[in-house]
Amino acid sequence: MTYIDLRSDTVTKPTEEMRQAMLTAEVGDDVYGEDPTINRLEALAAKMLGKEDALFVTSGTQGNQVAILTHCRPGDELILEAEAHIFLYEGGAASALAGVQTRTISGIKGEMDPLAIKKAIRGEDIHYPYSGLICLENTHNKAGGKVVPLQTMKEIHEIAREKDVPIHLDGARLFNAAVATGVPVADFTQYVDTVQVCLSKGLSAPVGSILAGNTAFIKEARKWRKRLGGGLRQAGVLAAPGIIALEKMINRLKEDHKNAQLLAELLANVPRLHVDVEGVETNILLCNIKETGLSNEEFLTKLKDASILAGPFDDGIIRFVTHREVTSEMVEAAVQKIKQIV
Amino acid sequence: MTYIDLRSDTVTKPTEEMRQAMLTAEVGDDVYGEDPTINRLEALAAKMLGKEDALFVTSGTQGNQVAILTHCRPGDELILEAEAHIFLYEGGAASALAGVQTRTISGIKGEMDPLAIKKAIRGEDIHYPYSGLICLENTHNKAGGKVVPLQTMKEIHEIAREKDVPIHLDGARLFNAAVATGVPVADFTQYVDTVQVCLSKGLSAPVGSILAGNTAFIKEARKWRKRLGGGLRQAGVLAAPGIIALEKMINRLKEDHKNAQLLAELLANVPRLHVDVEGVETNILLCNIKETGLSNEEFLTKLKDASILAGPFDDGIIRFVTHREVTSEMVEAAVQKIKQIV
Amino acid sequence: MTYIDLRSDTVTKPTEEMRQAMLTAEVGDDVYGEDPTINRLEALAAKMLGKEDALFVTSGTQGNQVAILTHCRPGDELILEAEAHIFLYEGGAASALAGVQTRTISGIKGEMDPLAIKKAIRGEDIHYPYSGLICLENTHNKAGGKVVPLQTMKEIHEIAREKDVPIHLDGARLFNAAVATGVPVADFTQYVDTVQVCLSKGLSAPVGSILAGNTAFIKEARKWRKRLGGGLRQAGVLAAPGIIALEKMINRLKEDHKNAQLLAELLANVPRLHVDVEGVETNILLCNIKETGLSNEEFLTKLKDASILAGPFDDGIIRFVTHREVTSEMVEAAVQKIKQIV
Amino acid sequence: MTYIDLRSDTVTKPTEEMRQAMLTAEVGDDVYGEDPTINRLEALAAKMLGKEDALFVTSGTQGNQVAILTHCRPGDELILEAEAHIFLYEGGAASALAGVQTRTISGIKGEMDPLAIKKAIRGEDIHYPYSGLICLENTHNKAGGKVVPLQTMKEIHEIAREKDVPIHLDGARLFNAAVATGVPVADFTQYVDTVQVCLSKGLSAPVGSILAGNTAFIKEARKWRKRLGGGLRQAGVLAAPGIIALEKMINRLKEDHKNAQLLAELLANVPRLHVDVEGVETNILLCNIKETGLSNEEFLTKLKDASILAGPFDDGIIRFVTHREVTSEMVEAAVQKIKQIV
Repeated sequence: MTYIDLRSDTVTKPTEEMRQAMLTAEVGDDVYGEDPTINRLEALAAKMLGKEDALFVTSGTQGNQVAILTHCRPGDELILEAEAHIFLYEGGAASALAGVQTRTISGIKGEMDPLAIKKAIRGEDIHYPYSGLICLENTHNKAGGKVVPLQTMKEIHEIAREKDVPIHLDGARLFNAAVATGVPVADFTQYVDTVQVCLSKGLSAPVGSILAGNTAFIKEARKWRKRLGGGLRQAGVLAAPGIIALEKMINRLKEDHKNAQLLAELLANVPRLHVDVEGVETNILLCNIKETGLSNEEFLTKLKDASILAGPFDDGIIRFVTHREVTSEMVEAAVQKIKQIV
Repeated sequence: MTYIDLRSDTVTKPTEEMRQAMLTAEVGDDVYGEDPTINRLEALAAKMLGKEDALFVTSGTQGNQVAILTHCRPGDELILEAEAHIFLYEGGAASALAGVQTRTISGIKGEMDPLAIKKAIRGEDIHYPYSGLICLENTHNKAGGKVVPLQTMKEIHEIAREKDVPIHLDGARLFNAAVATGVPVADFTQYVDTVQVCLSKGLSAPVGSILAGNTAFIKEARKWRKRLGGGLRQAGVLAAPGIIALEKMINRLKEDHKNAQLLAELLANVPRLHVDVEGVETNILLCNIKETGLSNEEFLTKLKDASILAGPFDDGIIRFVTHREVTSEMVEAAVQKIKQIV
Repeated sequence: MTYIDLRSDTVTKPTEEMRQAMLTAEVGDDVYGEDPTINRLEALAAKMLGKEDALFVTSGTQGNQVAILTHCRPGDELILEAEAHIFLYEGGAASALAGVQTRTISGIKGEMDPLAIKKAIRGEDIHYPYSGLICLENTHNKAGGKVVPLQTMKEIHEIAREKDVPIHLDGARLFNAAVATGVPVADFTQYVDTVQVCLSKGLSAPVGSILAGNTAFIKEARKWRKRLGGGLRQAGVLAAPGIIALEKMINRLKEDHKNAQLLAELLANVPRLHVDVEGVETNILLCNIKETGLSNEEFLTKLKDASILAGPFDDGIIRFVTHREVTSEMVEAAVQKIKQIV
Repeated sequence: MTYIDLRSDTVTKPTEEMRQAMLTAEVGDDVYGEDPTINRLEALAAKMLGKEDALFVTSGTQGNQVAILTHCRPGDELILEAEAHIFLYEGGAASALAGVQTRTISGIKGEMDPLAIKKAIRGEDIHYPYSGLICLENTHNKAGGKVVPLQTMKEIHEIAREKDVPIHLDGARLFNAAVATGVPVADFTQYVDTVQVCLSKGLSAPVGSILAGNTAFIKEARKWRKRLGGGLRQAGVLAAPGIIALEKMINRLKEDHKNAQLLAELLANVPRLHVDVEGVETNILLCNIKETGLSNEEFLTKLKDASILAGPFDDGIIRFVTHREVTSEMVEAAVQKIKQIV
C-alpha cells in the first residue's frame, strides 16, 4: 500500500542521481582523513556556511551533541528555547553525555527574546553554573517550521559577544529558512560560532549532517565524534549524495514550501480544522483538530486508513510536513480524503 | 562592627548548648558505621521524617545531589520548578554529576500545577529521555519562603504513583513549612519517596543536613555520599548539635516567622517599598524596591552602611530572612534605619 | 601513486557487488523502524551471532560504547585487558560518556587469566565501585590478531555468571577468529551477553558494525545509539553492503590469514627483522625492527618511499595487516622492497 | 569492651584540646567566605604546603575528587599507580563524576617508574584520550605506608613539565612521609601542582582535609566543592581542631612510626607470621599470615575475640596501623595475644 507520507521530510529517499553517486564515489578511510569525497563535502559545506571548517556527522543529533561536547564542560548551562529539538527530542543527551544543565526560555513561535537570553546568562557566584552555550534552532521544528529572523539572531549574537558565551545553531532545516526568506545561508551563520545542517530531510540525502565552525573547534569536534562512534571508514559513499544535496537540492525546497502553503489553504477550508495559513513559513504545518472531537490517535488512525500519514504534536495538534516525495496533486488528494474523515 | 544580618538563616551560629554537645559528644569512625552520635541522629531523623532510614550529609546541596544520583541515571529527566534551588543554586550539579536533564515548570509562588507535571512526564519514544525524578521544594526559597500546600503534594504524589516516577523533596526549610501550617512534618513527607532537611539554617546547627528514604535507597545513597567525599570520620561532633537542632530548635521557628511578619508590616509602611504582607508565610520576605529608584547594589550598600545586611534577588527585589539571631527589637531598629535610606 | 597498504583492514573499499547493492537497496526511515534492508541485516546478524536481536551501528567504537552505556551506570567498573581497543583507542569514551572506571588486567597475548578477572571483581564495600561489565576482545588487535581461545571464554563466562557480572565482546574481528579456528562464531558468542562485530574491516563493507544481545538490551541500546547520534534515516544504503559482508565475505578472510602467514615467513627471513611466525594466527602481524637501528618513523618513511604503508605499534614494533586488497603477489613484492630498506 | 584498634589511623578521636577549640571557635558562614577560623586554617595550610591557596574539604576523597574535577575534563586520562587509593577505594568517582579514564601503572612498593609514566602519556592521535593528570600518593597506603622518595617525585615532575601534564598528590598521609624522612613537606609539594592532605588520620582532627594549589585553581575547586555539597556553613567548628592538627600534631607522628617499628619487630618474631621489618617506613605494617593456615576472616575474628582490631588487605595479608591512641604498651600487649592465636 502506498501512503502519502506527511510525517516528516526525514522520510525522503535518495534520488536516482544520489544512488548513482554512491555507486561511483571515490572513497578512502576517513578516520585517516583519506576519503576524497568526504573531504570535498566538508570543504564545500564549510564554504557555503561561511565557516573555516566542517565535519560530516551521521545525524543532526550527532552534530548538535558534538557541538555541545566541544563547546562546554560539565557544570555549564545551556540556554535554549523551551521546545528546542535538543531539549525535547535528543534523549536528554546534552546532560547525559556533556553534563550540561538545560536552561530553557519560552520563545514566541520558536523565537527567544534576546533580552530573556541576556537575563538568563549567569553572573559570577559560587552557586551558579557557568553559562556555557546558547543554542538556537532555525527553522524551529516544534513551532511549525518558523524562521527565526535574521535581526533576532543578530541581537542574540551581540548579547552573546558581550557576555562571551558562544552560540550554536541547530540548523537542521536552515536551508528552508534561507530559501523561505531569500536570505543567504551564510548571513544567518555569521551570527553563530557553530552550525549544524542536515543533508537528509528536505535535501534528500540518505544519511548525514554537517557541523561547521572554526578550525580549532572542528579539530576538537572530530575527537568527540570519534568517541561517539561517528568516525566512519569509506564514508564517501554517504558524502557523494551529500554533495548533491548541497549543490542541487536546496532550491527545490521552494516546492515544499509551496506545497505546504497549498496544504494549509486547503485544510483551512475543511470544517472543524484550524490552520494558521499565514503562519506557514516553510514546509511544516500545524493543524488544530480539537473541534473534530477526535483524539490525535483517532485522527491519525483514520488518516492512515485513508493512506495518509502525519504525526502527533501537542494535544489536539497534528503536524504535516511536505517534502520532495509529496507533489501538489498528492496534497490535493490528501485533503479530499481528510474532508471525509473529520 | 555588628550587623543586623538578614541575608539568610544560614548565618546562624551554633547555640551554646550545641557547642557543649560538641565538646562531649561520643564519637567513632562513621565510615565504619561506628559513630554512636551519628547513628542516633540518623535514627531520630528517620523517625521524625517517617522514613525507614536516614543519612547525615554535609549540606542541603549534598543531600539533594546524592538523592538525584541515587534515583536517576544519565539520560533521565528531572522535573522541577523553574526557580527551584536545585536548578538555580547548585552549580548545575544535577547535570554535571548525575547527567540528568532539568525540565523546569514555572510554578505560581513556587507551587507547580500537578497537571503541568503530569504533562511533562514523558511517554515512550526513542527520542525522549526517561522521566526519572520529580523534585519539590518546601518551603520554596525563591518564591519567598512559600509553603507548598499538603493538598498539592498529595496530588503530585498521585500522579507520580500513576506514572511510576519517584519524588524527592528539597525540604531545606521543611520544618518552617510544618511550623507555619501546624501540619506535622511526616504528613508532608508521606507524599515523597525521599526528603532532604537542613539542620543548619533556622535550626542553627553549624553544619549538616539529613537525607531520608527507604532502607535500600539509603544504602545506595551512602555509596554516592562516599563518592562525593561526604563520608566523614568522627562526625559525631557535627551530629551532636544536629540532634539538638531536631529536638529543641523546631518550635522556635515560630519566632522567626513572627519576626518576618513584623518586618513585613513595618516595611510595608515605608514609602516606596512594597511588600506583600499576607504573602509572608514563613521566615523569608521579598521587598520590591523599584520605586526607590535605587539599584539592588545601591540599596544594599546603603543598608550595609547602616549596619544591615540583606540579599539581592531578582532585579529590584531584595530578600530579607529572619532567624534565631534576629530579635523583634532588631527588626524594628532595622526598619528605622531603612526609612532613612529610601 | 599506488601503495601496498598494509596499515589496516579498515582501508578496504566496498566491492563492486556492494556498490550495486547500494544502488538498488530498498530503504525507509530507520528511526521509524521502516528501513527494510536494515531490518533484514539486523535479523540476519542476530541469527548468525546467536542472539535475540541486533542493532546496526556506525562503527565498532559506537557498538562498544553503546554496549557499555547500556550495561553500566556511572560508578561501575569495567574490567578489560590492558591493551584492549576500548581502553587504548576509543578516546576514553567509556569513562567520558558512561562514567565507568576502567580496570585493566594484563593478558598474555591479549588473553586475560580468568582467575585474574575473578580476583578483580569487587566485593561489597562502601569504598568500592560495582563491577559492572567485563569486556573481552577477540581477535585481540594489539596482541597481533590473536584468537582468545573458546575455552578461556568459557571459563570467564562461568566466573561472570557466578559473580553476576555481564560480558561484552568486542568482536570487531570475531569472524577472523572463527575462520582461523574453524569454530562457529556463535560458539564464541554463547559465552557473552552482548557482542559487537564489524562489517567493515576484512568484510569490506564501507561503514558499520553490529551490536547483538537480548531483546530488552537492544531496545535500550537503541535509545543510547540515538543519543550518540547513531539513529540514521535511509540507512539501508549501508545495510545492503553489510548484508553482503555477512553473507559472502566471511570465508574469504582465509585469504587474508594465508597472506599474513606468507608475509610473516618472508619477513622472518629478512635480516634484522624479527617476526613470531607461529604467533601469526589471523591477518595481523607484528614485526620487531629494533635490530635495524631505525626508529618506527624512519622505518615507516622508508617504507612509504617504497610505496608500502604500515603502522607503528609500540616502540620498535611495526604492525602489518592483510586484507582483501592485498594479494600474495603484493605481499611478495612488498617484502622484496623491504629487504632493500633494512 | 575496649579494643586495641589497629585498623586505621582514621579511628583517632579528637584530642581534648581540639574539643575545647570547637567549643570556642569563632565561626561565620563559610559559603560567604566569612568563617574566620576556616580562613585561618586555609591560610596556614597553604603556607605549610608551599602553595598560593588552600581549601578545606570534608575528606581525602573529596579533596582528590575536587582536584580531578578541576584539573580534567571528560575524555581525559588519569595516570596513577595500580593500587592507588583513588583507584581502589573511591568508588570509581574519578570516572563517575569527572568522566576521566584511569590508566594504572604498577609501581614497586607504590612507587611508579618515571619512565613508565613518560610512556603512558599519550601523543596526539584521534583515537587517544588526552593525558589530563598524573596522581601520586605519598605515603602509599596499599603498599604499606611507603614513602615515595623525593628524587622520584622530582623526576616525575620533570617529565610532567616536559609533557605539560599537571600532577596532583594524594597526600592523605604526606606528613608521615615528611616526618619519616626528615624532609620538609614543602619539599615534596614543590614537585606537584596540587596536593591533598588529611587533618584526620594521624593528626587526629575529627573531620577534614586540605586541598592546596594556586589561586586560580582553588577558586575553581571551590565551585566544584560546592557542587559536591562540600560548601559548609559554620565550618570553623571543624577548622579549629584542624589548626591544632597542623600546628601541634605533626611531630607526634614519630611515635606512631616508632610503634609501628616495634610492632613489626615483635610480630616478626612470632612463628608463622612474616613481616618485612625494614620495609616499615611509617605507621602502616603489612603482615603475611599465610603460614598460619588461617584465612583473613578467621585471623581477624580471632584477633577481635582477643580485643584486637586489624584490617584485611590482599589474600593472606593483614594491615596494622599505629596512631595516637595506640601506645607501645598496647603494641606489646597485642603481640602477646597474637602469639596465642597463630
